[in-house]
Amino acid sequence: MSGSTFGKIFRVTTWGESHGPGLGVVVDGCPAGLSLEASDIQSYLDRRKPGQSPFATARKESDQAEILSGVFEGKTTGTPISILVRNQDQRSKDYGNQAEAYRPGHADYSFDAKYGFRDYRGGGRSSGRETLSRVAAGAIACKILGTLGIRIQAYTRSIGPVEIGAVDLSRIGQDPLCMPDAQAAEKARAYLEQCRADQDSAGGVIECRIWGCPPGVGDPVFDKLDADLAKAMMSIGAVKAVEIGDGTKAALSRGSQNNDGFRYGEDGLLTKTSDHAGGILGGISDGSEICLRVHVKPTPSISRPQATADSSGNNIDLTIKGRHDPVIVPRAVVVVESMAALVLTDALLGGMGARMEYLEKVWKR
Amino acid sequence: MSGSTFGKIFRVTTWGESHGPGLGVVVDGCPAGLSLEASDIQSYLDRRKPGQSPFATARKESDQAEILSGVFEGKTTGTPISILVRNQDQRSKDYGNQAEAYRPGHADYSFDAKYGFRDYRGGGRSSGRETLSRVAAGAIACKILGTLGIRIQAYTRSIGPVEIGAVDLSRIGQDPLCMPDAQAAEKARAYLEQCRADQDSAGGVIECRIWGCPPGVGDPVFDKLDADLAKAMMSIGAVKAVEIGDGTKAALSRGSQNNDGFRYGEDGLLTKTSDHAGGILGGISDGSEICLRVHVKPTPSISRPQATADSSGNNIDLTIKGRHDPVIVPRAVVVVESMAALVLTDALLGGMGARMEYLEKVWKR
Amino acid sequence: MSGSTFGKIFRVTTWGESHGPGLGVVVDGCPAGLSLEASDIQSYLDRRKPGQSPFATARKESDQAEILSGVFEGKTTGTPISILVRNQDQRSKDYGNQAEAYRPGHADYSFDAKYGFRDYRGGGRSSGRETLSRVAAGAIACKILGTLGIRIQAYTRSIGPVEIGAVDLSRIGQDPLCMPDAQAAEKARAYLEQCRADQDSAGGVIECRIWGCPPGVGDPVFDKLDADLAKAMMSIGAVKAVEIGDGTKAALSRGSQNNDGFRYGEDGLLTKTSDHAGGILGGISDGSEICLRVHVKPTPSISRPQATADSSGNNIDLTIKGRHDPVIVPRAVVVVESMAALVLTDALLGGMGARMEYLEKVWKR
Amino acid sequence: MSGSTFGKIFRVTTWGESHGPGLGVVVDGCPAGLSLEASDIQSYLDRRKPGQSPFATARKESDQAEILSGVFEGKTTGTPISILVRNQDQRSKDYGNQAEAYRPGHADYSFDAKYGFRDYRGGGRSSGRETLSRVAAGAIACKILGTLGIRIQAYTRSIGPVEIGAVDLSRIGQDPLCMPDAQAAEKARAYLEQCRADQDSAGGVIECRIWGCPPGVGDPVFDKLDADLAKAMMSIGAVKAVEIGDGTKAALSRGSQNNDGFRYGEDGLLTKTSDHAGGILGGISDGSEICLRVHVKPTPSISRPQATADSSGNNIDLTIKGRHDPVIVPRAVVVVESMAALVLTDALLGGMGARMEYLEKVWKR
Repeated sequence: MSGSTFGKIFRVTTWGESHGPGLGVVVDGCPAGLSLEASDIQSYLDRRKPGQSPFATARKESDQAEILSGVFEGKTTGTPISILVRNQDQRSKDYGNQAEAYRPGHADYSFDAKYGFRDYRGGGRSSGRETLSRVAAGAIACKILGTLGIRIQAYTRSIGPVEIGAVDLSRIGQDPLCMPDAQAAEKARAYLEQCRADQDSAGGVIECRIWGCPPGVGDPVFDKLDADLAKAMMSIGAVKAVEIGDGTKAALSRGSQNNDGFRYGEDGLLTKTSDHAGGILGGISDGSEICLRVHVKPTPSISRPQATADSSGNNIDLTIKGRHDPVIVPRAVVVVESMAALVLTDALLGGMGARMEYLEKVWKR
Repeated sequence: MSGSTFGKIFRVTTWGESHGPGLGVVVDGCPAGLSLEASDIQSYLDRRKPGQSPFATARKESDQAEILSGVFEGKTTGTPISILVRNQDQRSKDYGNQAEAYRPGHADYSFDAKYGFRDYRGGGRSSGRETLSRVAAGAIACKILGTLGIRIQAYTRSIGPVEIGAVDLSRIGQDPLCMPDAQAAEKARAYLEQCRADQDSAGGVIECRIWGCPPGVGDPVFDKLDADLAKAMMSIGAVKAVEIGDGTKAALSRGSQNNDGFRYGEDGLLTKTSDHAGGILGGISDGSEICLRVHVKPTPSISRPQATADSSGNNIDLTIKGRHDPVIVPRAVVVVESMAALVLTDALLGGMGARMEYLEKVWKR
Repeated sequence: MSGSTFGKIFRVTTWGESHGPGLGVVVDGCPAGLSLEASDIQSYLDRRKPGQSPFATARKESDQAEILSGVFEGKTTGTPISILVRNQDQRSKDYGNQAEAYRPGHADYSFDAKYGFRDYRGGGRSSGRETLSRVAAGAIACKILGTLGIRIQAYTRSIGPVEIGAVDLSRIGQDPLCMPDAQAAEKARAYLEQCRADQDSAGGVIECRIWGCPPGVGDPVFDKLDADLAKAMMSIGAVKAVEIGDGTKAALSRGSQNNDGFRYGEDGLLTKTSDHAGGILGGISDGSEICLRVHVKPTPSISRPQATADSSGNNIDLTIKGRHDPVIVPRAVVVVESMAALVLTDALLGGMGARMEYLEKVWKR
Repeated sequence: MSGSTFGKIFRVTTWGESHGPGLGVVVDGCPAGLSLEASDIQSYLDRRKPGQSPFATARKESDQAEILSGVFEGKTTGTPISILVRNQDQRSKDYGNQAEAYRPGHADYSFDAKYGFRDYRGGGRSSGRETLSRVAAGAIACKILGTLGIRIQAYTRSIGPVEIGAVDLSRIGQDPLCMPDAQAAEKARAYLEQCRADQDSAGGVIECRIWGCPPGVGDPVFDKLDADLAKAMMSIGAVKAVEIGDGTKAALSRGSQNNDGFRYGEDGLLTKTSDHAGGILGGISDGSEICLRVHVKPTPSISRPQATADSSGNNIDLTIKGRHDPVIVPRAVVVVESMAALVLTDALLGGMGARMEYLEKVWKR
């Protein structure tokens, strides 16, 4: 079944394989009148581009985005925005020995089981390269959110056993590991060097925070804001767990500790006295900071030989060649931001019909 | 926006409030020819019924399900199945002082922020009672899965700090706490007694395992099986984290540890040598056991006075009366199973169009 | 596949069979704050109730609507509105000889072909009684539209060969045939008497007009307002053709005749100099009156013996007993209005995200 | 709201403007294992290409389709198929005077009313050129249907007042007007010459027939096969009416005439003794030929001066330059086939979950 569309109103449809002619996305349902040019998208794509750090694949891709529709004279027209990125560095021969092999930790076997065969080149559709399309769409969503004063920032919270202490948001953009803590980044680099020396790979945790989201966003009972965020995050390849607010810690807590009280400040504004909930109550934003964490498994492609099987009935020893990230986390940071932005934009658009008075605001003339 | 429908083909629409006339569900897209009677649904509803344990609310509800459509002569007809459960014990006066108060940890404020006002009686639509509709639908899904040899079993993995050691699946149905470990259950009971004595509440973890799922189920890239499971679980009120397979532990692991190798057995069948992935690779089932964990926050309703605010601009001290579960976990076990069943049934139906040969199998005559 | 839900934002899910326990509808996505009580729905249901005219089935049904959820203290809460109507007069024995027979013009055979068997009592799910659920939902949609100054009126345009001349909207509510022309109504009654004498039935045409729809409603390119109206109308049992504006006549016309010019009036307001388009251009409302026509086939149940087959391989002569309308048109008038209202309400809600300035209007605080 | 996606399982998302960089489509949900190459799509695109007849616009476009994803080694992989067609002959200056003018019969004003402004070049998104994307997707759908023995053929039934008598399907492909009747085609050509001499344009009717559709396709109650066909057809620009089977004539008929009896032939197979219903009963195919008609308005762009208004408040006289078809019908024939194919493919895929036995056929191993 079709599973490459995300969102109900702000609908994002991605396509493309790692080693096909290109990848892209169609964004349908974007409101008209948003200033948008290719550079808005390019700056997001550049954040996930390969070849920018010693800990990312050396594949050479300029990842140049072309807007093919939906923008006229610098503004979105309300019609579908189609974005195309051509693949350039398609060294398919690197993947020759993978036509039959079922790589451990990859989707090779499950794709074969589902479809009967697969485009095996570089993981085909299940390649991490697929997230490029998400980021292109996320860039648009972030721009929409920005006009409403909503800001999203994700960063690396941990790599392997190395967790951040301080949070200095200003250094995230500069750090190849996207860590907001210089000391932790130092240690993480050392840990990754060790992994590489061991022909191994590392996992980690990405934290994402959202400021400025108004209260009242998200739809009970299935399309809760946290439920949609969980789906969005878990749909990113390699993600194995999602936490909202206190997350797993909440299960160990008591009601009296975990509950966030409400309080009117001296300015008469309602706030919460704590935010264990992560900004979402009953699936609807409560106006405080939204916070979530995403747990990413170690890169499955390691250069160490691995015992596995192939599609012809043989048990084999497989050595994976090619260019792979020793850790997925840093390049996935902008993907997490993008997916969060898609969810939030869709929920905001969905929420516009929540009250009769909103309907009248827009339609009564 | 409408958010009370779950699923793309097997579509489940729930409705109802805690203290309205009743709750129910419409299941559209159920294949014709499934044997179904009210007792199939009743046995699932009975598992989440209140008043069955010292650790569940004392509210008296028979939760009697009536099938209003879609079944004829004991079999589903392929048309929508409507199920109705009337509310009986609606002691609305218990909730009198909550009309204005924003209870900590509840959705009172966020509902007000979204809709402008709310049905405050017992949490209205955001009450845990809403899950009744999910379980009624889940019972049907489980019956479908059963005919395909797929079995789902959830249980309490931990309550507060008390975690299970052994797993004796046979005792889950007997234990009021749904724990598969008698010793742990003993300790959990003691912990809950303490919570109650402290006018407090506890959280916990539910684990869900699925056996017999064929490989090839789930749709890349957004509607991955794990992504849909994550959404399903996070949409259950009070859930704050979802893990698939090794979950949060995977982030700490290395590729060489976390990867599951494939291997043909002596019988020529392909299996995996481990299951860190939790039965899902690239969002598609790989034929091994599917495993997930759900982290549940402590019941927000505690009898201890709490500092909070009301909708009229006052900071107040709130004491919640009424009948509440000191822990949500045991009654949510069957809800977790139900949501897993909904996801899986929908994914199986969605997967029927994955190959041209399937299309020919059904339509070529 | 599930096909009992209509709409993308204002989502209406119907259920129920002609001779089951009842029928109903769940309306999800209704904005909060709309005044609504059972009588609002009842007045619409009463317009399609059987037994009110010599030309409608004599089946006795009070068709009493009960609102089960989504309304609190007289206002919609934004959560799903569930409406239930119990069946009362289920004379199932009338239908005994239809268990096996494939009635001409009915869905008996096609249901069997699809699902393997069917609830044969009174047509089961394919009964005209199913439209009751549509009307219940349509009543809510009409109330929403009314608050925005949008009014929908359908009426019988023709019965068999008898077409209206004058249009006196005030008499529609009084006339059992819903004709806005007393003379034509007189002739139509005579025609129907003749049909009945011949043990036969008649078809006809319903016209529907919508006033006050603002320009800019409807979504290119597939979800055009006229496309959604066409689907809505064709989904009503017995409808065989749908026309928008000049409809079939447009195909015979020339561009110079069919084009509607725009013109600013002395008041500075833009209007069209004609309305051949029926108020919709490029799938989007243009602010003028929306007009459509629906062609309804003659009631397939006639008391004359008919040559047909049964499910056991026999060719048979079938005489249909039971109580049937000699013409469907008058009772379908309110169904046409209801479906038009569902389409328009959904399109209005969908259009709220059409411009960035609308987004800011609702969300910027 | 997003309205550029069609279908529930076989999901087609189109994008592109008449004078932007290009147009295209993403087809998600196509079963894996279908042989497909660019030439399959090209042969359909060539049927609607401009510049092929004296009665079609002289715009020069090669309309070369590039498949960007979803096909590997000549077969569909089950992942999204992205198809791109670059625009070449974008003589935008022809449209200079249309930036402000509201062309009669076009969507200029309604787009402005919806989105606040528009891409005015050649109609932008509302251009007939948009149908190119539908045809590219339709080519894939037709190939799927072909493997199941289902064939779709549309043709011109009338142009202006000139209607076909005979139906010689073999000549449709050769005739620039796609008429299956040489004599009628002759007359239609003369009529069109006259229209052109009058600086005017003509409308017409397209008939579409489908052979080989198995019984049991289509979903009650809203997603009926005829309802979805009606939407599909009405979503094609310039279509003003849709008929199924006898269509408008059914409204004039009597039950005894309009009912189709069932009959077992000597071969034991069930057929109908007539097909007034057009192959669909209760929204579900009945196994006989499916037949529908589509009424197309005359091309709104005529070279005669027209009285209209502009977006700056002026009443103007507009003379439309540029290259336009004097009749839309012949080029829309392949669009009608394509839309019918999309509906049918989606309905067939949706129907695979109609029975438990189908589920077992695909999933039980």
